[in-house]
Amino acid sequence: MTNPTLIEVTRGPLLESFHTGALAVVSATSGVLLSLGDTRRDVYPRSAIKSLQALPLVESGAADRYGYGDAEVALACASHTGTQQHTKVAEAMLAAVGLTEADLGCGRHPPLGAKAARELWRTGGEPTQLHNNCSGKHAGMLATARHMNLPIEDYWHADHPIQQRVLEILCQLSGRDLGTEVMGLDGCSLPNWAMPLETMAEIFAKLVSGKGVDAQRAAAFRRIMQACWAEPDLVAGPARADSVVMARLPGRVFIKTGAEGVYCGGFPEHEVGFALKIDDGTTRASAGTAMAIVEHVLPEAVGLMHRDVLKSWRGIEVGTIRTAPALTQALARLNLS
Amino acid sequence: MTNPTLIEVTRGPLLESFHTGALAVVSATSGVLLSLGDTRRDVYPRSAIKSLQALPLVESGAADRYGYGDAEVALACASHTGTQQHTKVAEAMLAAVGLTEADLGCGRHPPLGAKAARELWRTGGEPTQLHNNCSGKHAGMLATARHMNLPIEDYWHADHPIQQRVLEILCQLSGRDLGTEVMGLDGCSLPNWAMPLETMAEIFAKLVSGKGVDAQRAAAFRRIMQACWAEPDLVAGPARADSVVMARLPGRVFIKTGAEGVYCGGFPEHEVGFALKIDDGTTRASAGTAMAIVEHVLPEAVGLMHRDVLKSWRGIEVGTIRTAPALTQALARLNLS
Repeated sequence: MTNPTLIEVTRGPLLESFHTGALAVVSATSGVLLSLGDTRRDVYPRSAIKSLQALPLVESGAADRYGYGDAEVALACASHTGTQQHTKVAEAMLAAVGLTEADLGCGRHPPLGAKAARELWRTGGEPTQLHNNCSGKHAGMLATARHMNLPIEDYWHADHPIQQRVLEILCQLSGRDLGTEVMGLDGCSLPNWAMPLETMAEIFAKLVSGKGVDAQRAAAFRRIMQACWAEPDLVAGPARADSVVMARLPGRVFIKTGAEGVYCGGFPEHEVGFALKIDDGTTRASAGTAMAIVEHVLPEAVGLMHRDVLKSWRGIEVGTIRTAPALTQALARLNLS
Repeated sequence: MTNPTLIEVTRGPLLESFHTGALAVVSATSGVLLSLGDTRRDVYPRSAIKSLQALPLVESGAADRYGYGDAEVALACASHTGTQQHTKVAEAMLAAVGLTEADLGCGRHPPLGAKAARELWRTGGEPTQLHNNCSGKHAGMLATARHMNLPIEDYWHADHPIQQRVLEILCQLSGRDLGTEVMGLDGCSLPNWAMPLETMAEIFAKLVSGKGVDAQRAAAFRRIMQACWAEPDLVAGPARADSVVMARLPGRVFIKTGAEGVYCGGFPEHEVGFALKIDDGTTRASAGTAMAIVEHVLPEAVGLMHRDVLKSWRGIEVGTIRTAPALTQALARLNLS
């Protein structure tokens, strides 16, 4: 099955590039509302489900025990840009459980954010594991391991009880028996289990609405969303789509990007979740598709992210990034009111 | 027409992402040898034809007049990484004709190369137009304008005689009447005219072989290729595919990357040119496809670029980037010996 084009990139009078992909929108009460492309193939959700990987931190009581507030919980769900604001929270999360940067297993890379990277080099710094965009997720897992008296070495291994707990939660939420035949490793070396986009969208529909999950889980995810809405810059970074949208529309939309063109999210008032994957893995297309969905469901979001014009380095408009007809038409048929 | 998958990206046991595209391989004497996907659609060649945009610099006599050697001619064909080595040559090219960085029209951006960018920030520098990956191309055009007593302001405008000369050459080489209906602007604000991949491949077949073009043009392009082979690090940068391959196989392969997933090149001894475009514009796929072609035609290139393994930040192998069956099979049928 060939997926439809979701995003087009024009230059001058011509279509220069295009991005195919698949998208599912699912209601917690009415089932699949929109299925565009192959939404039943297994797809790694990557960082788009960091909020699910953070559930053990909240559900185990670790977050409460160590006094983690909105900032710490938000960072546990983050793909952050590596600013000092981010690294300080990650460091504090570790310090609260008697650990340091050296205990992280995520590996080091320069800050994702261009400004943060420039600032680091300017001041003579070197990237540490705290700068890794996943450092909050890893710090949260270490705190959970501490709280549960589990070994902290190799907490990132797929067979460690922390990862097995994440797997158990994903199996519960998806209703699927996820095994090593659909397991890959993320860039931060944590296991990631593939599932269909329809399933991911259904999980987010349940979690943002609290319908179809037990009260404890609904409360835990509510706390996670509230943390991200309260500290949106910690989830990504200044001017990043996830941060901007959640800062401006708290309580109304929860969204999260993932590597290789994945995006997930949901709309609590509509009890609806979505999940999408761009075939080629490009973020410009996954972000463009996610923003098109958000803008369709919440017209207040129009204009928050200026994604449509491509400019040359001297500022001349040279092209556009726009939604393709297949996506535009599918969204036009999606009526949530 | 849906283009075939050329490059696959795996993670764990699954195919995570894939890249579709089109590829043409053309012989100067035997015509089209391979046409995979839609190779007749108009495609912007972008920076993959900087060597053609450098022809007026050599053919007009400007390069000789200003004492430009291999370094200057190579930089005129470059998408460079913005190291000091690159910026110094660009600055010298301008100084030789009494101009400075302020006369460039390419705009400024941080060095493309991560190491060069880090070095710039470390030393308290700010990006100038010399760091723009196209600064050599622009400096060469300014020198040509000086030599021809043309205005130097707005040399980058499509209606300036320098750009019109480039257009004339492209029309001659392509046998096509290229007009504004296929014109777009590059990131450096220069005009770029779209043409089919088959036509681009044919142009490179003619130029690398010297067959089908007049003696003066053949000599000019020979000089351009010799410059790139003599100064390969100036064409891109240390460890970049174009630089590594041309450094190790001078005289045997000429290759150049372009934005939005374009790649062009040729093999002089085989009198063959190629051109390819990845539909989604991704460089990992265009570079992977180009290296697959180079390795097929010149087995000595195998191992020069390690492109096939994806690792996590802590160094664990998590996936692969590999040629897809359609590309592997098409290359297997391509016998140039």
